[in-house]
Amino acid sequence: MMTPSDLASRLPEFTAAYHALQALGLALDLTRGKPSAEQLALSEPLLSLPGAGVHTDSTGVDVRNYGGDLGGLAIREIFAELHQVPVDNFLALSNASLNIMYDVLAFAMMFGVPGGDGPWMRAGHGGAGRRGGGCRGGGGRCGCGGGRGAGAGGRSVDARGLDIAGPGAAGPGVAGPRAGAPGVAGPSAVKVICPVPGYDRHHSVCEAMGIEMISVPMRPNGPDIDAVEQLVAADPTIKAMWVVPTYANPTGYTVTDDVARRLATMPTAAPDFRILWDNAYAVHHLTETAVPSADIGRFCAEAGNPDRWLYFASTSKITLPGAGVAFFGGSDANVAWLRKRKSFQTIGPDKINHLRHAMFLDSPQAVLDHMDKHREILAPKFQAVLRILGDQLSGIEGVTWTTPLGGYFVSLDVVPGTAARVVELASQAGVALTPAGATFPYGKDPLDQNIRLSPSMPPLADVEAAMEAVTTCVLLAAAEVAAR
Amino acid sequence: MMTPSDLASRLPEFTAAYHALQALGLALDLTRGKPSAEQLALSEPLLSLPGAGVHTDSTGVDVRNYGGDLGGLAIREIFAELHQVPVDNFLALSNASLNIMYDVLAFAMMFGVPGGDGPWMRAGHGGAGRRGGGCRGGGGRCGCGGGRGAGAGGRSVDARGLDIAGPGAAGPGVAGPRAGAPGVAGPSAVKVICPVPGYDRHHSVCEAMGIEMISVPMRPNGPDIDAVEQLVAADPTIKAMWVVPTYANPTGYTVTDDVARRLATMPTAAPDFRILWDNAYAVHHLTETAVPSADIGRFCAEAGNPDRWLYFASTSKITLPGAGVAFFGGSDANVAWLRKRKSFQTIGPDKINHLRHAMFLDSPQAVLDHMDKHREILAPKFQAVLRILGDQLSGIEGVTWTTPLGGYFVSLDVVPGTAARVVELASQAGVALTPAGATFPYGKDPLDQNIRLSPSMPPLADVEAAMEAVTTCVLLAAAEVAAR
Repeated sequence: MMTPSDLASRLPEFTAAYHALQALGLALDLTRGKPSAEQLALSEPLLSLPGAGVHTDSTGVDVRNYGGDLGGLAIREIFAELHQVPVDNFLALSNASLNIMYDVLAFAMMFGVPGGDGPWMRAGHGGAGRRGGGCRGGGGRCGCGGGRGAGAGGRSVDARGLDIAGPGAAGPGVAGPRAGAPGVAGPSAVKVICPVPGYDRHHSVCEAMGIEMISVPMRPNGPDIDAVEQLVAADPTIKAMWVVPTYANPTGYTVTDDVARRLATMPTAAPDFRILWDNAYAVHHLTETAVPSADIGRFCAEAGNPDRWLYFASTSKITLPGAGVAFFGGSDANVAWLRKRKSFQTIGPDKINHLRHAMFLDSPQAVLDHMDKHREILAPKFQAVLRILGDQLSGIEGVTWTTPLGGYFVSLDVVPGTAARVVELASQAGVALTPAGATFPYGKDPLDQNIRLSPSMPPLADVEAAMEAVTTCVLLAAAEVAAR
Repeated sequence: MMTPSDLASRLPEFTAAYHALQALGLALDLTRGKPSAEQLALSEPLLSLPGAGVHTDSTGVDVRNYGGDLGGLAIREIFAELHQVPVDNFLALSNASLNIMYDVLAFAMMFGVPGGDGPWMRAGHGGAGRRGGGCRGGGGRCGCGGGRGAGAGGRSVDARGLDIAGPGAAGPGVAGPRAGAPGVAGPSAVKVICPVPGYDRHHSVCEAMGIEMISVPMRPNGPDIDAVEQLVAADPTIKAMWVVPTYANPTGYTVTDDVARRLATMPTAAPDFRILWDNAYAVHHLTETAVPSADIGRFCAEAGNPDRWLYFASTSKITLPGAGVAFFGGSDANVAWLRKRKSFQTIGPDKINHLRHAMFLDSPQAVLDHMDKHREILAPKFQAVLRILGDQLSGIEGVTWTTPLGGYFVSLDVVPGTAARVVELASQAGVALTPAGATFPYGKDPLDQNIRLSPSMPPLADVEAAMEAVTTCVLLAAAEVAAR
């Protein structure tokens, strides 16, 4: 084990290594989980499908015209089986599951969900538990979305419609609101649990809507279930939690059946609590051992909480990220709810793209075979990342990383207090990393230690060069701190 | 002119004609403005595009991967020119402009728009004119979205999240809320002006969000501009108005430059008033005379109201309704606003579909040439509708219809009080018509006289048979009323 004093003594050595790194003039990028061009080429046939004269799906529907809010049956059948959801409870929609997740939360905020007592926007404003109740419990001054929360930070301005000038988020590092105490007015009193480190876009959806995020640690078996159980039992304004159940972003951890059953079973103070089950990487194995996903729908039904789960998935990292098919799954009540809400929003999804996909990946086995080809491209890159981390960083006190069996990321914890410095050093050496803090709500990693590594996009040689650079920066930042 | 007493005297004759009609056993449908299979076949090349190996757009972007929130540049350039919007202010997005319209209104309700004072949801609840103001003006009991409006009818339950069981709207014929008086609590105090008869899905978007609709008559030169000017000058909770500017649904009327200038120029009590300019039929001419669209963006800029307009369009009735490209246009501030709001919702639109379309319709002239082919198919159907209306219904007191120069509909006004009866009679004779009232807010035609005819989908012979049937029903219903 290399202790802080060991590190401090090697500061000159690490500094020299960093200067040598800078002299290489690298221009590499490990920021985002995008498939490489080599992976995209696996789906080349999609570019010519469905083909001239082919515009009728397996049910006889002309896919060129309006309608069909459930999506194409053939693609639903294939992916419903892979995701263990009954096909009647599994819809094929637009090109991005993020869009469905956003819409689901927006619908919940504006209109409520089955089993609830009205729009989530009104939760905690005295209306909970009363159907149609308004903001009558706020004391002399009603704060139903109007007043500024006592603890509101700069990151919640969106929710009040004030910061509407242009794209881009507010500056990083500002803590968000924690104004959720009963009776205290805030931008919104709704809270959502976020396992951390987690997916930045889950966080930004909440942030955009003024939903307070509560972090719980992500463990190798899933979200810290003891912490989750305590939180949801006590607070009726905790309405939902995010879960990436399989090969989670960025840890690669998979929720076990035991944890999933407890999520499905736990008492919740909110009668309309929802698990936002984003199974983005269900079939994205990196080894020959396919880690199975927990069957959250069955567990919820067996626990007598049939409407607790909302299922999201897509082909974004199976076929083409910009032009794939996204899926929604849920109980009968949740599916009926989504269909009704979406009936005001659209006349239907792109059924030609559904047909195109069902022709290209025409069975569950075809999808799995296709994923094997992805694995052949991706696995060596992940092996390189892990090899270099092991070679360079083993035994450094406070430095750990995950060993994912699937998905798109490696989660690297550096010496606490140095993640932002590592990203800065890497940037100055020509290696772009995901901003420190990006995997935490409000972009704020309380220990400043987590870095998400995304090796999918660059060629293998670039991954190797980038990881040698990253580990050089990790060591230098650790030595800098130790030498203080 | 055939008077009511003339009609009454011919009741036996019309009844006999109707019985003869029923004996034909028809099964025809004039309900929706869907393109026919013959029209869809015009876009056959899209089914094989972009083609193997083609995945780079005119700017060098790999259209298969994530990103690109503006949409493909080539398709934006082509349609921006057709729509008279600068390309930098014109985005290519998903497959349905209805989705963009819904999102724009949802964003406005939850977050507000540039130049406003916060979320539209809070308008009229004492917060108007105060940045960040809440619902402090509602008296002893705050009704910020919570209480039931005094005049609320059964159609507004969606806005309160109570009617969430499944698809389908509440029963027709129930008047909506008119609870917008200052200080009176209602589901929402926001109001939107709807020219009538109008597009039912514009109305249902408002209804879904609890936005009160105010009807103004649609005239041959556009919305009744005197009425609009008076309304928007007086009421700061009137935040927007729908306009289908060219070949409007269902009248076929086109907004003149004069009316458009007055819309752009009129003083509005709401500083953040928006014209929702849904130019769905800009190039959908039915004659060789192309009626030009008013240049609303330029008029608003010249009037010193540069942010007043929001532009919507699509290729739904140019290429393929389910798999086309939708567009959004607006001022710099409005485009920046939409991009920011959408940045939380999606990683980008389907850029392959943009490329596919830009390859198929590779210039504005190519679009116009393509629309000529649609016209060759559609014009005879419209001519048949108008010929049969003229032959059968000329001179009937109270019966009028429009003569569209473009678009997808003929608006038929039957004898007041008989529209629902005509639709019922037609249904019993095997001819499906759009439900009476569908073209009015809350599905409620106050005079029960308007019927929207949609002749695009059936073959010409079926259109002719259906119209003979419709006119038979119009005459019988008129005679029934006259004979009472």
